Amino acid sequence: MYLYQDGKWVERDKYDGLLRGEAIFETVRTWNGNIFALTMHYERLMESAHEVGISLPFNVDELRDILKEGMGKVPKSRNEEIRFRIILTLDVNPGVYIWAEPFSIPDYIHEEGVKVGISRYRRMPVESCPPKVKFLSRPDIILARKHKGDNYDVIMLNIHGCVAEGTFSNVFLVKSGALITPDVDSGILPGITRKIVMDFARELEIPVSERKVEVRELFQCDEIFLTHTSAGIVPVRRLETRTLIEDSVGGITKILMDVMRKEIFSKDEYWE
Amino acid sequence: MYLYQDGKWVERDKYDGLLRGEAIFETVRTWNGNIFALTMHYERLMESAHEVGISLPFNVDELRDILKEGMGKVPKSRNEEIRFRIILTLDVNPGVYIWAEPFSIPDYIHEEGVKVGISRYRRMPVESCPPKVKFLSRPDIILARKHKGDNYDVIMLNIHGCVAEGTFSNVFLVKSGALITPDVDSGILPGITRKIVMDFARELEIPVSERKVEVRELFQCDEIFLTHTSAGIVPVRRLETRTLIEDSVGGITKILMDVMRKEIFSKDEYWE
Amino acid sequence: MYLYQDGKWVERDKYDGLLRGEAIFETVRTWNGNIFALTMHYERLMESAHEVGISLPFNVDELRDILKEGMGKVPKSRNEEIRFRIILTLDVNPGVYIWAEPFSIPDYIHEEGVKVGISRYRRMPVESCPPKVKFLSRPDIILARKHKGDNYDVIMLNIHGCVAEGTFSNVFLVKSGALITPDVDSGILPGITRKIVMDFARELEIPVSERKVEVRELFQCDEIFLTHTSAGIVPVRRLETRTLIEDSVGGITKILMDVMRKEIFSKDEYWE
Amino acid sequence: MYLYQDGKWVERDKYDGLLRGEAIFETVRTWNGNIFALTMHYERLMESAHEVGISLPFNVDELRDILKEGMGKVPKSRNEEIRFRIILTLDVNPGVYIWAEPFSIPDYIHEEGVKVGISRYRRMPVESCPPKVKFLSRPDIILARKHKGDNYDVIMLNIHGCVAEGTFSNVFLVKSGALITPDVDSGILPGITRKIVMDFARELEIPVSERKVEVRELFQCDEIFLTHTSAGIVPVRRLETRTLIEDSVGGITKILMDVMRKEIFSKDEYWE
Repeated sequence: MYLYQDGKWVERDKYDGLLRGEAIFETVRTWNGNIFALTMHYERLMESAHEVGISLPFNVDELRDILKEGMGKVPKSRNEEIRFRIILTLDVNPGVYIWAEPFSIPDYIHEEGVKVGISRYRRMPVESCPPKVKFLSRPDIILARKHKGDNYDVIMLNIHGCVAEGTFSNVFLVKSGALITPDVDSGILPGITRKIVMDFARELEIPVSERKVEVRELFQCDEIFLTHTSAGIVPVRRLETRTLIEDSVGGITKILMDVMRKEIFSKDEYWE
Repeated sequence: MYLYQDGKWVERDKYDGLLRGEAIFETVRTWNGNIFALTMHYERLMESAHEVGISLPFNVDELRDILKEGMGKVPKSRNEEIRFRIILTLDVNPGVYIWAEPFSIPDYIHEEGVKVGISRYRRMPVESCPPKVKFLSRPDIILARKHKGDNYDVIMLNIHGCVAEGTFSNVFLVKSGALITPDVDSGILPGITRKIVMDFARELEIPVSERKVEVRELFQCDEIFLTHTSAGIVPVRRLETRTLIEDSVGGITKILMDVMRKEIFSKDEYWE
Repeated sequence: MYLYQDGKWVERDKYDGLLRGEAIFETVRTWNGNIFALTMHYERLMESAHEVGISLPFNVDELRDILKEGMGKVPKSRNEEIRFRIILTLDVNPGVYIWAEPFSIPDYIHEEGVKVGISRYRRMPVESCPPKVKFLSRPDIILARKHKGDNYDVIMLNIHGCVAEGTFSNVFLVKSGALITPDVDSGILPGITRKIVMDFARELEIPVSERKVEVRELFQCDEIFLTHTSAGIVPVRRLETRTLIEDSVGGITKILMDVMRKEIFSKDEYWE
Repeated sequence: MYLYQDGKWVERDKYDGLLRGEAIFETVRTWNGNIFALTMHYERLMESAHEVGISLPFNVDELRDILKEGMGKVPKSRNEEIRFRIILTLDVNPGVYIWAEPFSIPDYIHEEGVKVGISRYRRMPVESCPPKVKFLSRPDIILARKHKGDNYDVIMLNIHGCVAEGTFSNVFLVKSGALITPDVDSGILPGITRKIVMDFARELEIPVSERKVEVRELFQCDEIFLTHTSAGIVPVRRLETRTLIEDSVGGITKILMDVMRKEIFSKDEYWE
């Protein structure tokens, strides 16, 4: 078997998963220099692995050791955190690739909110792939991102035209003091930050409704925010032509952001 | 940026398309040692590239030269041909990877036919990704193949439950002396071998119908065959529990296989 | 307001539900001259009525009295039963129309089984109309019946191409000694006879699975039968081109038919 | 056969289409006392009839005579027109019912525009029923109207969540000086007024695009109007929470309304 790479032909003995485009992944981050919710992420990676028939080549402690070793290598400034992307190829002996990079979320994102669009590409349906399997490569997501322009993220609808999720985030609406977010049957990855936000909301006695969400509701609700591992809660300032935030972030979104920032460190379940 | 690979952390300056799972591909083969239909494959690769916003880093002549160089390297026995898989990453300067391997199709495949199943995973719909973009990585295809068992290929239905295509092949039915194959609106990649077969059929005055095909028709037609670049026409001996070929391949399938084998070399359009 | 009817124009003061095509219905039958499962049918009619915003103009006892009065009128021979079709128009004061006719199911239907097809019209999806509302008029059903030819009934698939139900029946498959039937999420009316059959099966310790059913399974299972109020369990002799019963009905289908015929009269819940 | 009707049981010899809920229809109106576009409506009725396998019991001249006779009966004031609803039952000898009633469209509808909502019920898909068959009874439409509240009409989405049509109207968007309307593949009845409006627009060199329309576009366009036989062009003042017309109707909508009102009488094709 020969592979043409970097302009020349070389002999190779296997055609590994990365070159076949067959891989799953999981994103993990630090908060104040500590790895966040690793057990939850590990369990989700295990679910993905199980669905595609591979075994994880490390247990959660071994993975933590690898990530900690990486944290020691990656140079970062005082305000930065580390983001890891753990990639496993679908081989009998899965290849392991882990990216580590410093990152920081600019303040304006949480203070002023971001611009978000609605993609014309529909999220791949559950009938094609169970949403909980985090494949490294998703044609629908690649195309949605290619056309997202200057938006922070774009919301993908499912094949029935209901709201599903962003290309790397979950979507929340605030309407009359209550939280609304697409349910799992809408064909979403039930994100870890999504779960954390719903838990905090329930503690604050904010009603939470997981259900089918129509596109028109994005234009009729009071607030919208996204959630994802790297940035937590991200307020939406502008959705397509609709301006949701005139000045600075307020409302339920602000309450949840403040509570999460304060309380997250006292929840033991995220830090063992 | 650091990458954990082969068990250790190394510094890296870019997170390329292959590690992001962002790549397109095209498969090309030789026939009697000559590269087959390269212009058609090149044009299709260009269409894929255009749709995802990258430029091909070679023209068709440069590509031919690279493939010919590879043909010189890959050892092959007298009955073997070469199959190339050309992979382009979605980077500003696309990475080029080309696999070359010898292959031969065992005689029994064309003489006795193969076993084929129907996948429970639905083909990714056109609303999620235009079918003509050949992404290297397709979650629906990965899952369908993981569960294909001892089948040669599995037929994927579209999200409306109509017949679409195999994971690497197009599907044809023969019914009352006519050819039936899912139309482009069914959400298929209109394969090059599929086109060649339809052209030959029309020359032989065999009626050809491109249309929506229902699953029940797979159990009611007279013959079924698959088409794909590597093996040309592949007769289906058994579809799930239904036996279509008791002894050896006959009927319209046999006629088309014979004609294609004889006539393919005299069609100039495939060999320039 | 004028209405042209029977060839002449007449003055009319209202445009009632029947002429607007707005009506719901329910079918009820006698068994050995006794009205069967009236309370269950009444409750289902109430559910339909509730969903479309009308009130039933009778309680279950008043309805029973009306039906009994009808039973006294309709002439019937010794082997016949009475079938009622109760129609309510969607008016502020719903119009009530009840058809009563004698019927008997020819023996060959239960002894030899029937011919069934698969319709090319997809069952109206749940997103268009909740399946539990029994509208008198269903375009999908009208069309499916117009094209059913000499079939006893035709099976309609849902818009995902999975098995839903017949135009007046539910569908059961028998596979390796277990019952399989489309679940409510497949978009079916959960028929009363369907429920009775599942109850009997569970009493007999026959495993019952309510789930998504693929078309290919109709060609791979051991037995198929339909259920509906008028005929109870109806064995399928032939499905499209597939013959399921060579001689007389046997297997699980026969066991369930026999048990149902014997035991139905001793179940008090159907006869109060 | 016995029928319970108006509180008593009566003998009846047939169970006709109206009582089975099986009927098709067509709406026709007068303009300045003349029947409008009767040939077009007749042809569409013929198409519906053909699809469901019945024959029209009159030719276009006989139908015109019946309608004219009705026009002589129905009392109407100076500003009123007559609206006919022609109903045909699906019987071997189709029953004919024609409603005739005077009507007038209040001025404010054209001067100020109307309130329109988006229904949560999805339009019945083309896979269930070809859109060109105008069935009298449509469960999806019945439910959408039951929940339309104080809206003039509600827009129904198709099962992919794209804009289809109102429950009795077609939908047009105006964006950057061009007309956009859902194409036939979106699953709509291509209305006669819809066609007239597009013809006028093209004469005025206003670009017209028939294509898939996303829900978000309803919130991003400049103007929206509906079209239907009774009221012609109906401007949308308010769509759900979005106000489109602050004062009086203007823009392209106004231009088309004015042109249609002036020119419609000089187009011979509508008046033979």
